[in-house]
Amino acid sequence: MQEEWSELDLIRLFSGRTGAPDAKGLIKGIGDDCAIFDTPEDRSWLATTDILVENIHFDRSWHPPHLLGRKSIAVNLSDIAAMGGTPHYALVSIAVSEQLDKDWIEKWSAGAAEILEEFGCTIIGGDTVKGPALTINIVILGSGAKDRIIRRSTAAEGENIYVSGELGSAAAGLEICRAPVLFQSTAEDALQPLINKHLNPTPRVLLGQVLAASKMVGAMQDISDGIATDLAHICSQSGVGAELDADLLPGAEILGRVSQIINKEPVDLKISGGEDYELVFTVKKGRDEDLLRLLRENCGEQVYRVGRTVKGCDVRLISGEDAVNIGFKGFQHRGSGS
Amino acid sequence: MQEEWSELDLIRLFSGRTGAPDAKGLIKGIGDDCAIFDTPEDRSWLATTDILVENIHFDRSWHPPHLLGRKSIAVNLSDIAAMGGTPHYALVSIAVSEQLDKDWIEKWSAGAAEILEEFGCTIIGGDTVKGPALTINIVILGSGAKDRIIRRSTAAEGENIYVSGELGSAAAGLEICRAPVLFQSTAEDALQPLINKHLNPTPRVLLGQVLAASKMVGAMQDISDGIATDLAHICSQSGVGAELDADLLPGAEILGRVSQIINKEPVDLKISGGEDYELVFTVKKGRDEDLLRLLRENCGEQVYRVGRTVKGCDVRLISGEDAVNIGFKGFQHRGSGS
Repeated sequence: MQEEWSELDLIRLFSGRTGAPDAKGLIKGIGDDCAIFDTPEDRSWLATTDILVENIHFDRSWHPPHLLGRKSIAVNLSDIAAMGGTPHYALVSIAVSEQLDKDWIEKWSAGAAEILEEFGCTIIGGDTVKGPALTINIVILGSGAKDRIIRRSTAAEGENIYVSGELGSAAAGLEICRAPVLFQSTAEDALQPLINKHLNPTPRVLLGQVLAASKMVGAMQDISDGIATDLAHICSQSGVGAELDADLLPGAEILGRVSQIINKEPVDLKISGGEDYELVFTVKKGRDEDLLRLLRENCGEQVYRVGRTVKGCDVRLISGEDAVNIGFKGFQHRGSGS
Repeated sequence: MQEEWSELDLIRLFSGRTGAPDAKGLIKGIGDDCAIFDTPEDRSWLATTDILVENIHFDRSWHPPHLLGRKSIAVNLSDIAAMGGTPHYALVSIAVSEQLDKDWIEKWSAGAAEILEEFGCTIIGGDTVKGPALTINIVILGSGAKDRIIRRSTAAEGENIYVSGELGSAAAGLEICRAPVLFQSTAEDALQPLINKHLNPTPRVLLGQVLAASKMVGAMQDISDGIATDLAHICSQSGVGAELDADLLPGAEILGRVSQIINKEPVDLKISGGEDYELVFTVKKGRDEDLLRLLRENCGEQVYRVGRTVKGCDVRLISGEDAVNIGFKGFQHRGSGS
């Protein structure tokens, strides 16, 4: 349906980034009934998709279009990162309401094109239509070396659990964007990293690739719904339990102040804040030091040990003498309530 | 985003059709950050996508959910057919408004699952969210033998042009669905095939595959926007012109009566009606008889010669002594106006 208009429009919006045939395997990008591409040798394909709806997944009143374009792609790249994969191709579809001005769409697509280029990813298809509500659908196709793709289901008991960055920052940033007036007495400089984390998250693609190449990782996924929920996926699929040490969960220094203002505990933001787009992974027994050395030497990205896998099936948060089951107590977008 | 809810929901909606690992190359379907799959030997991948919005691309007041589920998939399968490919995997995303009852969604997904199964296609991912407007995004991944994928850009001068079925039926069916009161004096039996063609088109996947295997086809694409527009794509990408014989364009017998009622010429419905999802293709010089024999022996599907490619770049409609340039005068969905 709507081939003509949509293709012309996609090409206009993403001019120069819409997939000329290349050495990597793309045979035909936009412009025929389908895109055509080959598979890199010894690799399997990875496919992921997200549909994002205005006022459910994002709010245009505070989300600049350029950054929303970046984030629309980033949340999908994060899924590729979570398997240790390399992103190759994107299918970008957008339904746009009559009220939306052209300038907004152009800034959005420039942001989307920018991050796709940063991660070596080419737009090979998509669709642009009019609709009553701004709706964005992104598909990313990537690949991973056949024997190195990291799944959720392969954690074993007795492995240490790590995360790739501070938790709860994106959720705190969302609160600041929603009601900036509450934060007027707090220095803007201190808040900005939290806001950035909400508006413009960085998918951990390079880290994921290094972890996959290391063969020292048990299981991995990205943290989109909060570690309480996302780690519970690893646990239920791997048949293990997990214990998180509350004291080890990394968080921005300013998180305490923000939590106070919104009347929450910092640890709640950390475990169920959502949208951090960090990676959570387990390290095979006895390989922690080797892996940490490898990371220092290869990508310099910091990771934080936050707990361990145990016998059982629960995700428990340990603080001092207390242990609370937090499995699946994660963030849900307003759209996902039922 | 929203992994947990969406995945559980997709699995519930499409239970049993959501991709257990199989012999065809699927390694992991729904349930991890990405689906994982391998490439069939000596084949290239094909990818196509469409986003469909309520009241722009379909009208729930007359489109039964089961048939809309089928059509949502069929329009994408038609793009795979247009390259001569084989469909393998689907990514199915849907944004659903609060007002939509669960029964509707279940019937829709049953229809989608049914046609996917008919064409050997497995759901490997997707997303389900709440949104203000019912919006459906489908991606189909398929494959074609490396040297046999048929493009739009490979027609040559002096080739005969064929279509795979009657033209204008879907457009006539749409008119009947929109204003059935106008057609009360016409026998329902006679109208039903037109209505079916609009509500439940059949993608010409098998025919496309036989045409690709024959190596006798110049260029091909599916007719989604009307042959005036779709053939113009082949012409502009191949650097040829085309002449269509008005007398040769196949149409249902009842089309004359419908055209009269809606005050249009039958030929206008045929050339710019849209949504027929037939194939239009050229046959390499001198190979017509061989190809027609092959089709009779292999799939029994009828094709109709409707014109020929010529020097130039226009698509011209020849009726008697008249020749009119009709290139790109095709159907546009209400959503694609600017």
